[in-house]
Amino acid sequence: MENTKKTFRELLDKIQAYGHAMSKMYYDSVTVMPKRGNEAVGRTLGVLSEEEYKLSTSEELKSCTKELLAHKDELDAITAREAELTWESFSKLEKIPMDEYVQYQMDVNTAQGVWHEAKVKSDFAMFAPHLEKLVKFNRNMARYIDPEKPPYDVLLDEYEKGMTMEKLDEFFAKVRAGVVPLLKAVMERGRKIDVSFLEKDFAIDKQREFSEFLMKLMRMDKERSAIGETEHPFTINFTKNDVRITTHYHEDMLLSSLYSVVHEAGHATYELNIGDELAMTTLGTGVSMGVHESQSRFYENIIGRSREFVGLIYGELVRLFPQEMEGVTEEQLYLAVNRAQPSLIRTEADELTYALHVMVRYEIEKKLIAGEIEVAELPKLWNELYKEYLGVDVPDDKNGVLQDSHWSGGSFGYFPSYAIGSAYAAQLLSVMEEEMDVFAQVKSGDLQPIIDWLTCRIYKFGCLKKPGELIEQACGKPFDPQYYIDYLTKKFTEVYKL
Amino acid sequence: MENTKKTFRELLDKIQAYGHAMSKMYYDSVTVMPKRGNEAVGRTLGVLSEEEYKLSTSEELKSCTKELLAHKDELDAITAREAELTWESFSKLEKIPMDEYVQYQMDVNTAQGVWHEAKVKSDFAMFAPHLEKLVKFNRNMARYIDPEKPPYDVLLDEYEKGMTMEKLDEFFAKVRAGVVPLLKAVMERGRKIDVSFLEKDFAIDKQREFSEFLMKLMRMDKERSAIGETEHPFTINFTKNDVRITTHYHEDMLLSSLYSVVHEAGHATYELNIGDELAMTTLGTGVSMGVHESQSRFYENIIGRSREFVGLIYGELVRLFPQEMEGVTEEQLYLAVNRAQPSLIRTEADELTYALHVMVRYEIEKKLIAGEIEVAELPKLWNELYKEYLGVDVPDDKNGVLQDSHWSGGSFGYFPSYAIGSAYAAQLLSVMEEEMDVFAQVKSGDLQPIIDWLTCRIYKFGCLKKPGELIEQACGKPFDPQYYIDYLTKKFTEVYKL
Repeated sequence: MENTKKTFRELLDKIQAYGHAMSKMYYDSVTVMPKRGNEAVGRTLGVLSEEEYKLSTSEELKSCTKELLAHKDELDAITAREAELTWESFSKLEKIPMDEYVQYQMDVNTAQGVWHEAKVKSDFAMFAPHLEKLVKFNRNMARYIDPEKPPYDVLLDEYEKGMTMEKLDEFFAKVRAGVVPLLKAVMERGRKIDVSFLEKDFAIDKQREFSEFLMKLMRMDKERSAIGETEHPFTINFTKNDVRITTHYHEDMLLSSLYSVVHEAGHATYELNIGDELAMTTLGTGVSMGVHESQSRFYENIIGRSREFVGLIYGELVRLFPQEMEGVTEEQLYLAVNRAQPSLIRTEADELTYALHVMVRYEIEKKLIAGEIEVAELPKLWNELYKEYLGVDVPDDKNGVLQDSHWSGGSFGYFPSYAIGSAYAAQLLSVMEEEMDVFAQVKSGDLQPIIDWLTCRIYKFGCLKKPGELIEQACGKPFDPQYYIDYLTKKFTEVYKL
Repeated sequence: MENTKKTFRELLDKIQAYGHAMSKMYYDSVTVMPKRGNEAVGRTLGVLSEEEYKLSTSEELKSCTKELLAHKDELDAITAREAELTWESFSKLEKIPMDEYVQYQMDVNTAQGVWHEAKVKSDFAMFAPHLEKLVKFNRNMARYIDPEKPPYDVLLDEYEKGMTMEKLDEFFAKVRAGVVPLLKAVMERGRKIDVSFLEKDFAIDKQREFSEFLMKLMRMDKERSAIGETEHPFTINFTKNDVRITTHYHEDMLLSSLYSVVHEAGHATYELNIGDELAMTTLGTGVSMGVHESQSRFYENIIGRSREFVGLIYGELVRLFPQEMEGVTEEQLYLAVNRAQPSLIRTEADELTYALHVMVRYEIEKKLIAGEIEVAELPKLWNELYKEYLGVDVPDDKNGVLQDSHWSGGSFGYFPSYAIGSAYAAQLLSVMEEEMDVFAQVKSGDLQPIIDWLTCRIYKFGCLKKPGELIEQACGKPFDPQYYIDYLTKKFTEVYKL
């Protein structure tokens, strides 16, 4: 058994090493790489992913894992869970033909490069053939993994274990029933919120300085984290001691980078506070996209758009932008960051309309992965759904179907995690508030007790527990989207004096 | 044969892929990685370098290469040269035990991290045990490769094929005989050059903007190159379509980053202009460190410190730093960038004293690799040689033995390339001047004809020719350091009105 454990660990370490190298190359390619470096990156990723695939599907790993699982009672909790998850991913990977898998890694790399350019040029046709390849692979992959289940359910399960269209249809129906009338009330009866003071240019080097302030406020450890710049902000964790957030500065949109930094810092906070005993294992990372988004959206919205947090950042904004902020009160800033307004861009959307943006993507992905629609039809359907759900006209694909990076990265089934995450976050808040005066804590400027609370309930467990189980234990009851509806109702009733 | 060629290419591509991934990880680790990411990087590099080593020493590669070399006449020039170089490096690598090689990759990674910190803290003792490991490996490696030759000759040959201590002793003796009296004349009889206008703070964001100007002036293609920031500036080429330069901005030293950017852009210009037919082969990179340094130092000194180049950058400096540059004339700037002054830091050294800095390192490396001195004695010997060659007192190890990154990266035998490179550059200039009015061309602001000339003579060949052969063909005669002495004498006689 000790030998088996040792071999198992060595194999997992090797697989992790390949993953580490590939993630680093990805990070480089979307932050600092000159455009034409991409071709060689694709080739290198092809070589590395082939090796990773071979290791991940090797007979050696299979027999080790099998033996460990046969003696599960004798294993420590970490190794037992690792063996379980390895077996799971083993069984999946084994079903995907290697040549298709390797080709896919290279296709994703190419597609990401093309997407960046297509978005700049607002040219969907340029991106379409690449997207088709990715869609095809994902449809096939889902069938390889479980031919009995609808393909989209298989993909959803990848991002949030146990998630299905049935559950999501019910969830989104509830959200829709709560959000749509609330938004209607806001638009018809809410007070007018002035955001004209934001319609200025805010120098990017000052915004960079402000990001440093935010990262400090959020207690991000400088020795273990850093910020980069990219087209579409994301967080990537190489280990719990090397977590990178990214942002995109827009001179004319102060709030865009501000809240993307708080959002990504939320993801990073999760990763930075994984239990030390998990650090060098395959469990040393966030457990699911839904739980991850619950953290990013908790900090971005629940904390970050609270009156107390706005109080913390107001002074620094005035210091950095004395002219731009002249005459702007703290209350005006608070209202401005909470203005609800149907819009075109998901990442710029307010807390209230956000779920509607996600619903558009959910409806599209359902149809696309089922093969009910094809890639060429995406722009039309996208624009129709934006009109239906948000009442807005999409002027071009750059502000429409090309806005998000997810599909270019091969992620289909990720988007619902954002809405689920928001709902998890609201439920977590209600429990936290029973034990702590959360917003008094924010007001004090010391977020550490909040981070500590979440570390104890969520972060430290890494992948040791399943997402549903984790949320249920943290909250003391099963997941219930009603908390989310109640939270939004209370907040927007107050903000808009309904 | 066609099958052998195909397998050979596939194996080389794989080896290149590993190299690519490792270089990317290295680049990340010294530009943007938070400090504590280093541990995991070491482990990953261990895994990747083991695979690379296995491939590079595999029986499959050996038999392919052997077969190709047996039919060398039937091969195209590129494949023939690749086979030749592969056989050479194969024969070397095969002699190094794999466990030592893999351990060394990890040791280098650790040593680089420690060196960065040790330099900041000026703490040689902290770095010494790591340096000892690297020295030991290099001594052993040299003996493995060729037990007949003095170990330092084996290492010199790695950086500049054919270089030996015998040749270098003769070269440095000539340089010393030329430079020492010239420097003496400058110090005793030269006019006083005022550099007080540089003793100000130059805002780093403006310096960043200036770097962009320089890269444009030097015709660096934005789609194929980029600039990063690091402790100790270097250039790294992943492919000819992805070349990165780096710099380090010091608010109180405008010229430091300015000339490091021109220097690194010189390296980059070489890589960016390798022949397209070599791009995806193992020959698609600069042929040796000496030839590489000839290019970086050609642009940095011969072009970059010419009156004509100073004329090109003067206006932009005035635009970016109107207050700091107030009252400074173009002629004052020209004299300031050419002031000769014995000093402590090699990378900040002027064109005239530079070779003396290199000589200190050469003398130390000779003794260190021969085992005549040990690591613990380095600071003392360093300080003694600086006193002897440059007449300066070294105040601490940060400004002494810890200043350069080379040894922490395992490079022993690299330093002489800088001096050799300067001498190559001066000889190349003399030939170029026979065919073109070089400085009139600089004055025009269009450096392209100069780049084109060097592309035809040097860049396009990549590793297709040997360094000595390349320089000899480009110059039409063998290498002769007299051009370098003559160039320095003419220049400093003019600058100092001797």
